[in-house]
Amino acid sequence: MNYTAQITIMPLKELLDPQGKAVNESLHRLGISAIDQVRIGKHITLQIEASDEKQAHTLADEACRKVLCNQVMESYSISINAQ
Amino acid sequence: MNYTAQITIMPLKELLDPQGKAVNESLHRLGISAIDQVRIGKHITLQIEASDEKQAHTLADEACRKVLCNQVMESYSISINAQ
Repeated sequence: MNYTAQITIMPLKELLDPQGKAVNESLHRLGISAIDQVRIGKHITLQIEASDEKQAHTLADEACRKVLCNQVMESYSISINAQ
Repeated sequence: MNYTAQITIMPLKELLDPQGKAVNESLHRLGISAIDQVRIGKHITLQIEASDEKQAHTLADEACRKVLCNQVMESYSISINAQ
């Protein structure tokens, strides 16, 4: 079966996020001062051919650990949907 | 009130995503060939001070249009949660 995985990778809360800070300041300069604590990460979608949802999750998790996510600085979450 | 916005920004379906393609090939080289059609975008979280959820959504939408999203190449979706 074919599954779609939605993966969100964010910088760890304990770490500074310079990109988010720069965007935060840009927004304030543009007058949107009600917005704060901007943090920027990655969103990845991919298709997985697997026998069941559990196997799809295992494959997505393996991809995160091996390629997509740098676990020293980032955390990830995976959501799997059947197609 | 304080709201949290989760914003997902993805490259438009019609466009090539070279970063996603490179990751796709890396995964195949590592033996994870059940994964395909990798597309990579951004995930942004931010805090919004607003009177209600509708106003929070309007502010997040303004931030997307003015700073976060390049609508020539990307599309965005916004999800607002009360805190």
